[in-house]
Amino acid sequence: MSHRLSPLLQPGSIAMIGASSNPARIGGMPLDLLRHFGYEGQVYPVNPKYETVFGYTCYPDIESVPATPELAVLAIGAAEVVGMLQRCHARGVRAAIVYAAGFAEMGGEGTALQEELERFAAESGMVVAGPNCMGFANLNLKAFTAFASVFRNVPAQNGPGRASLVTQSGNVCSAVFALMRQLGIPVSHFINTGNEACVEYSEYLEFLAQDPQTDCVIGYIEQLRDGGRFIDAALAFAEADKPLILYKAGETEKGSEAVRSHTSALAGNLALYKAAFRQLNIIQGQDFAQMADLAWLSGFRHRAGGKRVAIVTLSGALGAILADKFIGAGLDVPTLPMNVQDALRNGIPDYGMVSNPIDVTGNIVNNPDFVRSVFSALASTDAVDTVVIYASGSLLDRMAEPLLEVCAQHPRLFITIDTGQAKCREQLSAGGVPVFTDIGRAVQALAPFCHWLTGRESVRRWARLRRQVQGGREERSLAGLNEFETKRLLGEFGVPAVAEAPAGDADAAALAAQRIGYPVVLKVLSADIAHKTEAGGVRLNLADEVQVRTAFREIMDSARRYDPQARIDGVLVQAMSRGVAELIAGVTHDPVFGAALTVGLGGVLTELYRDVSHRLLPVDEAMVDEMLNELKAYPLLDGFRGRPKADVAAASAAISALSRASLALGAAAQEIEVNPLQVKENGAVAIDALLLPL
Amino acid sequence: MSHRLSPLLQPGSIAMIGASSNPARIGGMPLDLLRHFGYEGQVYPVNPKYETVFGYTCYPDIESVPATPELAVLAIGAAEVVGMLQRCHARGVRAAIVYAAGFAEMGGEGTALQEELERFAAESGMVVAGPNCMGFANLNLKAFTAFASVFRNVPAQNGPGRASLVTQSGNVCSAVFALMRQLGIPVSHFINTGNEACVEYSEYLEFLAQDPQTDCVIGYIEQLRDGGRFIDAALAFAEADKPLILYKAGETEKGSEAVRSHTSALAGNLALYKAAFRQLNIIQGQDFAQMADLAWLSGFRHRAGGKRVAIVTLSGALGAILADKFIGAGLDVPTLPMNVQDALRNGIPDYGMVSNPIDVTGNIVNNPDFVRSVFSALASTDAVDTVVIYASGSLLDRMAEPLLEVCAQHPRLFITIDTGQAKCREQLSAGGVPVFTDIGRAVQALAPFCHWLTGRESVRRWARLRRQVQGGREERSLAGLNEFETKRLLGEFGVPAVAEAPAGDADAAALAAQRIGYPVVLKVLSADIAHKTEAGGVRLNLADEVQVRTAFREIMDSARRYDPQARIDGVLVQAMSRGVAELIAGVTHDPVFGAALTVGLGGVLTELYRDVSHRLLPVDEAMVDEMLNELKAYPLLDGFRGRPKADVAAASAAISALSRASLALGAAAQEIEVNPLQVKENGAVAIDALLLPL
Repeated sequence: MSHRLSPLLQPGSIAMIGASSNPARIGGMPLDLLRHFGYEGQVYPVNPKYETVFGYTCYPDIESVPATPELAVLAIGAAEVVGMLQRCHARGVRAAIVYAAGFAEMGGEGTALQEELERFAAESGMVVAGPNCMGFANLNLKAFTAFASVFRNVPAQNGPGRASLVTQSGNVCSAVFALMRQLGIPVSHFINTGNEACVEYSEYLEFLAQDPQTDCVIGYIEQLRDGGRFIDAALAFAEADKPLILYKAGETEKGSEAVRSHTSALAGNLALYKAAFRQLNIIQGQDFAQMADLAWLSGFRHRAGGKRVAIVTLSGALGAILADKFIGAGLDVPTLPMNVQDALRNGIPDYGMVSNPIDVTGNIVNNPDFVRSVFSALASTDAVDTVVIYASGSLLDRMAEPLLEVCAQHPRLFITIDTGQAKCREQLSAGGVPVFTDIGRAVQALAPFCHWLTGRESVRRWARLRRQVQGGREERSLAGLNEFETKRLLGEFGVPAVAEAPAGDADAAALAAQRIGYPVVLKVLSADIAHKTEAGGVRLNLADEVQVRTAFREIMDSARRYDPQARIDGVLVQAMSRGVAELIAGVTHDPVFGAALTVGLGGVLTELYRDVSHRLLPVDEAMVDEMLNELKAYPLLDGFRGRPKADVAAASAAISALSRASLALGAAAQEIEVNPLQVKENGAVAIDALLLPL
Repeated sequence: MSHRLSPLLQPGSIAMIGASSNPARIGGMPLDLLRHFGYEGQVYPVNPKYETVFGYTCYPDIESVPATPELAVLAIGAAEVVGMLQRCHARGVRAAIVYAAGFAEMGGEGTALQEELERFAAESGMVVAGPNCMGFANLNLKAFTAFASVFRNVPAQNGPGRASLVTQSGNVCSAVFALMRQLGIPVSHFINTGNEACVEYSEYLEFLAQDPQTDCVIGYIEQLRDGGRFIDAALAFAEADKPLILYKAGETEKGSEAVRSHTSALAGNLALYKAAFRQLNIIQGQDFAQMADLAWLSGFRHRAGGKRVAIVTLSGALGAILADKFIGAGLDVPTLPMNVQDALRNGIPDYGMVSNPIDVTGNIVNNPDFVRSVFSALASTDAVDTVVIYASGSLLDRMAEPLLEVCAQHPRLFITIDTGQAKCREQLSAGGVPVFTDIGRAVQALAPFCHWLTGRESVRRWARLRRQVQGGREERSLAGLNEFETKRLLGEFGVPAVAEAPAGDADAAALAAQRIGYPVVLKVLSADIAHKTEAGGVRLNLADEVQVRTAFREIMDSARRYDPQARIDGVLVQAMSRGVAELIAGVTHDPVFGAALTVGLGGVLTELYRDVSHRLLPVDEAMVDEMLNELKAYPLLDGFRGRPKADVAAASAAISALSRASLALGAAAQEIEVNPLQVKENGAVAIDALLLPL
């Protein structure tokens, strides 16, 4: 495979500039590793002090290296970096890794140095990783360019690595790598990205999405610098059917404080990260062990699984515990259809359970034919996606053979949990059945994995939608739109508004009220007055012309007193409208992910309960409907306690029209909000709207 | 120690009735274990078929056993059990374990058999464990009465067991025991309680609270049969300063379905279980591995720790991750005071962090004096309770000595996490510093352990409150109280009501309105009409006598049409009162835990968001204040977005008065609810109240 990063990540030859003969120093450790593990490419240590290091011939300078190295690793100080890169470039080197700290993370002069580095890379076209990074390792090629002591302290790899690590912290990379190796998971790439001055996080992901030696990626992120490119990379993972498992630091204020100090990176809006990860079918990692387990599970992703789980145990209590845990983790444990229950009841005694969780009872293991028929029934039914079997030690051993037979015949994903010392573990794993040894670990890894399996379809659907709506931005002047103009603009895209008309004087207001029909509402109309009620600019429930004329006068007086500088366009006369519920819907432009839609129930409690749903744009009506369904307050739209049902379809249509408007207007409309969107038994109308231009 | 259960749990001699020579059979396995592990008491197998089994002399019947055994274990069928118990009792045996299934868990005849068993136990005074149980093991005494194969399949115990297991499932008991042994944690008692016909779960807890060989208990509960006794037992654990760590099955509907089928036990109201556990400082277990870790941590409970955590790492990224995780688990990671930060800054370079999380940076390990001064500063400051150190492998090894020195000088709890292969693990552990080897496991166990440490004071405070208010129940007729009478009754206990007066006719209503002051509210007054608005029985904002008289007529007509059978006492005339917020407060009688108070924000969304707080009674004002503070909607009481602040103290006083009323009235007042309790800027008043008699 050929990619801009190939010379960096699968180098055919390596120069080590600032080579050392001391394996404890950064200029020596990678050479020691290359020699120890037997890298097959050419290695060119560069340092005038040595003739040879670690058995490699050492050269006094890059110019005297006998052939052009594909990659140069710079173990030299920050101040000398750009000069040396220029010499490497002149020598034909295509890629470099810069270990040195003292760049943007230090501020001041360091920032200037980093800018110089970025300019050089842009002009030369050289691929420069780091600075302030620990380097890489391609474990399959045995190409070690990292000064990390962890490689010699962990068990040697058996078999090819299929999982890659990409982190924004060298320490995290080492810690997760060590854990994966302790668990016996072979690793493909070990990548830590440092300051990402010239090669940004997402570019590594692009490489790994294409890399035939990478089945899945475990990542650690403090800050994304290019959200658009990240979205593309995540979609490439979806396309390639590879799980992307990312830990996002800065989940709480304290964590993000630490991240800020660490890399001067601003942690993004966590709620939006969560929403984007889910939308892109990225697994959000919870801890290192869980991520390692997910890397291992990724090897079983071609089996047919999903989030509807059947649980098989030999104990009712353990069935109850597993059901609690899986449901708590967001999976479904559906009651089995009667035909499957009947089949199970054929061999399961009365004191066992057949509905799901299934308690086959302990004696069952003496009857391998019936065990096989249980697994067959669960492999064939459409009512579940994944089958989880808890059986300990010898009990699992006695079920292994029929289980493997069924697995060979059916694509369904079977998972086992053995908290004893079953002998069949390797055999099961080789036969396509992962074995967990701890209930908590099983739930923590399986739940997101099953969600990933189920989520593959919807991320591909979204990728198609995104391709369709790319481009086509309108050019409009968006400055100073008042409420009426904003709703009229949104109306062009299909957002319905309540019956309303602007009125510049009392006569016009009275006429408008008559046309609209009493009772009406009068609201001050001014792009300069954001808080209309506070300005005394709202009068509700006006019943006749006299009230309208009085209200007009009072509103104008009050608004002028409130803000004498404001441009006041008169009032907006609206029908007095009642609905079943009021929603808030708005599009904002996130600095990382771009345009994002937020939907919630209107009112003060929404803010306190944070009962909102987010999506990156574009969205279609089905996606908005999904968002509304995610709200805890959704029952209020759905006939809660005898209330009328709200027209959810109309609300979804109005909100998806709002997002179309936002996409068409582009970032020039920095924020657009409809609040409230009144949802009625029939239809939904914008009562108020606001557009903040860039 | 002497306790009713002593002959059961620390038997001096054991008869095995239905003995078998086959170690795979239930009558043989315990004998095999007793022999294998070297139990020192007398063992009397009983079975006419054998002369000896496992080297023990076997007797044809219980009558021919040469001395009175303290405990008889019955490995015989259900139908023979009561007869055999009578013979054992006649022989002087004080305690028995019944393995047999076929009792209440089977229903029908089994239920009758169990009732017979219960009668026998009550009349004879014999202590009968089970039926439908797996038996016990006192591992320190090597007294095995359980037919569980797990004992021979796990590593032998080194040193005395200090942690005891009590479960309502034999399979769970075995699974957790196996896990604890794999982790090297020695166990004291292995207890599974079966149907608890004559010895209920809490009685085992009472024994273990007193048992000098038990430091902590790991339990598994499907159903509590005696909540009052359970509360007493939990308080005995608090008194003895022993952690009680319980897994409650049936957390979700599916889990509880499985539990129901398993032991015909109804899973309790989970929200109340959670609240009761927290109030009693019981640690709610999340999974088996976590519970095993907690048992191990319990050995460190005498160190001074709590929920304000300082985090020390050699990496900013790992500090961020740990801060996220600990805060996410409910612990505090407070910013350190400046004097501590200054002390740290003496040796930590600028690119490190001193505020908390603390990044001491990697080089620090070369300076043991400074490492010692960091730990000393953190051991001495009042700003934190617990210090967590993450350092991997050799890095931790190099910090171990100064750490142990500081630990020897200061009582503060230090915890380490080593994801490498540090050599100092045992040394640290022996010196009072637990070492975790996985971040996720560390957080999962540490967070509840630190909460337990911090929670010890408040559970003792509650125990004192509970002792003070025991007894003193009033005898009252509570049937048919209307809204006014209910509020008057509550008023006697100090619950203030809105200004109001009952009125039997329009004249009286007009007079009352005049006294109270306009505007007023009229509400139909009838103990028979629960839904007043639905009955057309409420008129708001009445401004004068004419409106009051009209409203009276309309309300009476409407209510009579709505329910012609209802006894209607006239109307209630109330001041039209406005507050800052409306609360709901109610006391219900839970079948397990008894009287429990629920507090929440009033209105339909509270139900959807389940934003409520529960406590077992009694409560005092400080506890109610705590409950209000737990509500997510609390900011609405506290000046949210420029609103006025509500009189929270008055609300707490009113709600604690409500609980006093409930305690005084006893279970005869099955439910008492004030809804809404209107909280004003000054004061709080009950607007409506309801009392449901038993």
